[in-house]
Amino acid sequence: MANTGQTKNMAIPGKMKAWVLGNPGELTLVEKPVPQPGQAEVLVRIDAIAVCATDLEIIQHGPPALIQGGDPFNKNFTPGHEYMGTVVKLGPGVDEFDVGDRVTVEIHAGCGRCERCREGMYTACLNYGMNYGDRNKGHRANGFTTDGGFAEYAVNNINTMVHVPDDMSDEEATLVVTAGTAMYGLDVMGGLVAGQTVVVMGPGPIGLMGVGVAKALGAQPVILTGTRDNRLEIGTKLGADHVVNVRKEDAVEAVKRITRDQGAHYVLECSGAPNAVNEAARMLNRGGRICLAAFPQEPVPVDVAYLVRNNIYVFGIRGEGKSATHRACAFMQQKRFNARLIHTHTFPLEDVPTAIKYARERIEDAIKVVVKMRH
Amino acid sequence: MANTGQTKNMAIPGKMKAWVLGNPGELTLVEKPVPQPGQAEVLVRIDAIAVCATDLEIIQHGPPALIQGGDPFNKNFTPGHEYMGTVVKLGPGVDEFDVGDRVTVEIHAGCGRCERCREGMYTACLNYGMNYGDRNKGHRANGFTTDGGFAEYAVNNINTMVHVPDDMSDEEATLVVTAGTAMYGLDVMGGLVAGQTVVVMGPGPIGLMGVGVAKALGAQPVILTGTRDNRLEIGTKLGADHVVNVRKEDAVEAVKRITRDQGAHYVLECSGAPNAVNEAARMLNRGGRICLAAFPQEPVPVDVAYLVRNNIYVFGIRGEGKSATHRACAFMQQKRFNARLIHTHTFPLEDVPTAIKYARERIEDAIKVVVKMRH
Amino acid sequence: MANTGQTKNMAIPGKMKAWVLGNPGELTLVEKPVPQPGQAEVLVRIDAIAVCATDLEIIQHGPPALIQGGDPFNKNFTPGHEYMGTVVKLGPGVDEFDVGDRVTVEIHAGCGRCERCREGMYTACLNYGMNYGDRNKGHRANGFTTDGGFAEYAVNNINTMVHVPDDMSDEEATLVVTAGTAMYGLDVMGGLVAGQTVVVMGPGPIGLMGVGVAKALGAQPVILTGTRDNRLEIGTKLGADHVVNVRKEDAVEAVKRITRDQGAHYVLECSGAPNAVNEAARMLNRGGRICLAAFPQEPVPVDVAYLVRNNIYVFGIRGEGKSATHRACAFMQQKRFNARLIHTHTFPLEDVPTAIKYARERIEDAIKVVVKMRH
Amino acid sequence: MANTGQTKNMAIPGKMKAWVLGNPGELTLVEKPVPQPGQAEVLVRIDAIAVCATDLEIIQHGPPALIQGGDPFNKNFTPGHEYMGTVVKLGPGVDEFDVGDRVTVEIHAGCGRCERCREGMYTACLNYGMNYGDRNKGHRANGFTTDGGFAEYAVNNINTMVHVPDDMSDEEATLVVTAGTAMYGLDVMGGLVAGQTVVVMGPGPIGLMGVGVAKALGAQPVILTGTRDNRLEIGTKLGADHVVNVRKEDAVEAVKRITRDQGAHYVLECSGAPNAVNEAARMLNRGGRICLAAFPQEPVPVDVAYLVRNNIYVFGIRGEGKSATHRACAFMQQKRFNARLIHTHTFPLEDVPTAIKYARERIEDAIKVVVKMRH
Repeated sequence: MANTGQTKNMAIPGKMKAWVLGNPGELTLVEKPVPQPGQAEVLVRIDAIAVCATDLEIIQHGPPALIQGGDPFNKNFTPGHEYMGTVVKLGPGVDEFDVGDRVTVEIHAGCGRCERCREGMYTACLNYGMNYGDRNKGHRANGFTTDGGFAEYAVNNINTMVHVPDDMSDEEATLVVTAGTAMYGLDVMGGLVAGQTVVVMGPGPIGLMGVGVAKALGAQPVILTGTRDNRLEIGTKLGADHVVNVRKEDAVEAVKRITRDQGAHYVLECSGAPNAVNEAARMLNRGGRICLAAFPQEPVPVDVAYLVRNNIYVFGIRGEGKSATHRACAFMQQKRFNARLIHTHTFPLEDVPTAIKYARERIEDAIKVVVKMRH
Repeated sequence: MANTGQTKNMAIPGKMKAWVLGNPGELTLVEKPVPQPGQAEVLVRIDAIAVCATDLEIIQHGPPALIQGGDPFNKNFTPGHEYMGTVVKLGPGVDEFDVGDRVTVEIHAGCGRCERCREGMYTACLNYGMNYGDRNKGHRANGFTTDGGFAEYAVNNINTMVHVPDDMSDEEATLVVTAGTAMYGLDVMGGLVAGQTVVVMGPGPIGLMGVGVAKALGAQPVILTGTRDNRLEIGTKLGADHVVNVRKEDAVEAVKRITRDQGAHYVLECSGAPNAVNEAARMLNRGGRICLAAFPQEPVPVDVAYLVRNNIYVFGIRGEGKSATHRACAFMQQKRFNARLIHTHTFPLEDVPTAIKYARERIEDAIKVVVKMRH
Repeated sequence: MANTGQTKNMAIPGKMKAWVLGNPGELTLVEKPVPQPGQAEVLVRIDAIAVCATDLEIIQHGPPALIQGGDPFNKNFTPGHEYMGTVVKLGPGVDEFDVGDRVTVEIHAGCGRCERCREGMYTACLNYGMNYGDRNKGHRANGFTTDGGFAEYAVNNINTMVHVPDDMSDEEATLVVTAGTAMYGLDVMGGLVAGQTVVVMGPGPIGLMGVGVAKALGAQPVILTGTRDNRLEIGTKLGADHVVNVRKEDAVEAVKRITRDQGAHYVLECSGAPNAVNEAARMLNRGGRICLAAFPQEPVPVDVAYLVRNNIYVFGIRGEGKSATHRACAFMQQKRFNARLIHTHTFPLEDVPTAIKYARERIEDAIKVVVKMRH
Repeated sequence: MANTGQTKNMAIPGKMKAWVLGNPGELTLVEKPVPQPGQAEVLVRIDAIAVCATDLEIIQHGPPALIQGGDPFNKNFTPGHEYMGTVVKLGPGVDEFDVGDRVTVEIHAGCGRCERCREGMYTACLNYGMNYGDRNKGHRANGFTTDGGFAEYAVNNINTMVHVPDDMSDEEATLVVTAGTAMYGLDVMGGLVAGQTVVVMGPGPIGLMGVGVAKALGAQPVILTGTRDNRLEIGTKLGADHVVNVRKEDAVEAVKRITRDQGAHYVLECSGAPNAVNEAARMLNRGGRICLAAFPQEPVPVDVAYLVRNNIYVFGIRGEGKSATHRACAFMQQKRFNARLIHTHTFPLEDVPTAIKYARERIEDAIKVVVKMRH
């Protein structure tokens, strides 16, 4: 560990630079007070942060779930949730981390007091967004309902942090949460995937990490479907045994061909395409399972009869539960797949709007755009 | 037990009366050879059989899943699957049952050799329908792909049979499989339902039995939704704490009202209504679960985004797996709910077409129509 | 609900009467300040509390698990954990309960920040006992590591509380946690118990509640083993289909006889007898499961080979996890079993030492001795 | 695949060489008729077979579980269960395999008709050993209760077979079942092991494969304990992050040291040492799990109180259930660990007694001794 005395004594300024949201779509770089960590919290100096498609959504429309009390458009709200950094201050009673520890973060800190948190489903916390005012239940989702990481510092609940190995770069560490979401998706479908057929639909960041995680878990074959050959090539490098360009071949037919008409065991749907549920169902054998990590904005026709007749289970998931980021980070530490393949661009904090533009418009085939601080 | 020596020596005729399917919709009463039980099978003298909505479907269109090898319209096929009777002959090696035992049956005898059977999911057997000719894998689904119970005798795999308690009538025993399906639906959603809110959508036979089973398991409250007050009243007698006539009140609003805006934990969907998945989702709290035991025939618009954002799991099920009929029969033996409330009409074997007509057209508010043999 | 305005305005005194522990075995009635509820906590006016065998242990030897920081013999510690009462004050942000609500409590409020709490196993919290001083992690186990209920008031985390139905007496409500422990024991073994054979070993309070819960869940048969006929009789009233006095018949032989050599599916071991694990194992069929809710103080010979050869799983449990008290309370509210049968004696707060003496020495066949406050 | 026409037309002789058991300990090479495959079975020409410690046990004392009907000392019984070979004949209805397929086998073919088989726990089949005479239930455990692999041919149920990849040697393929047992042990403890601490006790074949499988699944750290440095070195090559020679350091202390007092999450106990359960328990953190894949012959003192107070679950397992051999074979195909490291010696079929002697007496540090056929 590089926890030098210097780091431990590092001065924390009173003010910090932070991007804040004004009206929808409006981001401004301001000075804000550095926040203070409370019980079970630490202060993280942010070293790098990746841009997620959900950030673009939040900046335009607010968080995807109902906010009760916390309105990003009225709070000098700082978005951004895929970040990593260095612990610079511990809240009272914290000894799970030390000042100087490099950490990467996940999003959801459940309230710990609702039924879902009590059963371990903290990403489905019933008090989501309840972190304000009179009805403060202690839930945090940095970058969604509480201040996030397009800033110099952020406060994190210790439940949201994973130690970063010494030999993992800052940029790579920002991708742990993405890999964790993919891992959680595989977990909720059942967990025993070695030797099983896994189809990943959609070679976005979660889908590509899903390929890496599925292969690390021993899935065989791993099939990736998508529309862009360059993305599919990265999938191959991450461990996909087969890639299918759905502009050239029907995805369902391809899966049947590859599996010799047996069908797949699991589909991790990361495309959000309107017909994705129906296609996923038809890729599966009877009793197969679908995890939805993406979705179309509007209601779409679903062949519900097919799901029932074929005993198919469909799992909608939020985030990266069951400590999946810890497991994903372990795989990345063990070099089971090269997450860095999806990191394409880097910008400094001052250039967050450019970084976001690259991510939104996929300029120069951008996949993951990272903002790297210069301390 | 009433296994007298007399029963044990009961003569089995060489021929029997059986209804067989000709062209779609065409049923004829014929004489057929009494079948012989093989390894792990017994011969059952049928004493009573209930008419299921699926029977109507099969008689018109064939079984709902792909048949490979077994075509009911070319085989003197006998439909009917909700039957009970008396064991009259044991196949080789069978000692799990005795001649004279009263038994009721479930549908699925898995092949025992596919991946799903190996993991205990025998109602999703990958060799469904494979009981014929060169590719005989040993799967049986009496009344679906192998001869069923609108006849005097049928052969049953021992995996499909449950002992009937002495004080349970033949008619009531035909309802065990219906209750078993409802129980399986609750099981796949997680199993711990005491004190949890269960909504049952649709007061058909499975829905009504679902009310009884959910209450027996301690669900609280149990809410039943439907369109007909007389059916809802039966639901109340079976244990529903609240009934909602969706013609008079919006079902989602009603569930919110009853649960004081907490939402339900589980929805057992038995209506097959086009908007059922969307309504079920909106009845649930975050992280809630839906089991689909019915479905609309055509694809319907589904708000997939809502499922994902609310971490909802949707379980399509076939039949009555995990030995759920055994558990349902135990509850019925313990008088936890009065299944007989859904039995409305009785006819003799000769009147199967009339029985089916009553069931199809819901004549005199028919719910479960039973055909009772006169031996 | 009886939440009248009067209750809501009820004055809370600054001081209260409380029994505190001095040297081992030494209890004194003193005046202590009434504690104040913090975040996610309420103040409960205690209305009744039952004496548990573990209380006797704690009073003599301290809590059964390692205490880190909280030593009951140096803190004016108040023991007692099986209590119920009335909410009289809400901590900041609490709206899950109202002033005036009648509640009964469970023991464990996990820290919410360790691996076990994160996965929902809060009774196995890795920060057990960490509620003091510099390393305060927020764990509470009232009556074990934090002040308990032999007093007029106690502070409770909202995770430890269940609403008491209007028609349940104070005395009965103190038994919910005992039934909850039994229910949790059945849950960890798998959950689907309807129609399965459950053996309960040992007719102490947990064992007797285990009989009631197992029967409520549909177990069939429920077999209770023990040494005292009067206790076994109560077991029969609570739903045991068979009772076995092990002084008169070998327990393993009896289970084989009753199950016609099939063996049991589950054993809930509540006796703590030295040979209990070996006997439980031999009662089971292959693949059966044992839950240990009691234990002998000293290491005992165990036939480990038998466990492995027969594929037996053994579950040691702490407390009443997975919100089992909520489920147990639902069954009690639904009158599925009469928990009051195990309540035998009642004393006022002043007579705690007598209550404890009755419980320890089983005077007049005492089972559950309750201390009832007179407000 | 190397399924040439030549292979498909390969002549099967009427007689074969096979080692058979006479009195305990007595093995003779005889000529026996080549067996015929029935429904769901194939005939396998054996190409290689490994010697397992259980073989030694069976040859001296008979199978470890109750045999009902099949007594190896009276049947010209052929032992041996860790074999692989080539499919040379298909039973009726088999199309899951082709003549010429290379396959490796697992032991248990459940009856498919008992409660355990119905729920997928086929290695705990309640009809274990029931493959003879009037009460033939169809169970098979080749080398235990039905003829095994120290012979030229054997009949196998298709449920017991896994395809061998082209680039895996015959010798390596005999080790799949050993790796499968280790994988099953990890599975029954919960399945999500990436980033978790796994201790493997005992560097025998299952333990060493356990190290490889645990590391393949992402466990971190993997700790191996044992008494022999040369075995521990092989463990290091198979992926152990730490090895502990228990003659030099207390195993519990070592685990605490390595995990910085956090304790392990899982212990896979493969040593059978008398104090193994107690040591495993003390290696774990609260809520940890032990899987017992080995056992001492005699009852041993177990600190049951420690298990209960620390919420520890103990899983006794038989064999390699849940299709674990398929998953293990996938990992081996993917070269996740080098199983060949435990293969130390090879002998021809004629030298089975020498092979067994090497295995029993660990001559020249023998770990896995393989008998290789010369066709």
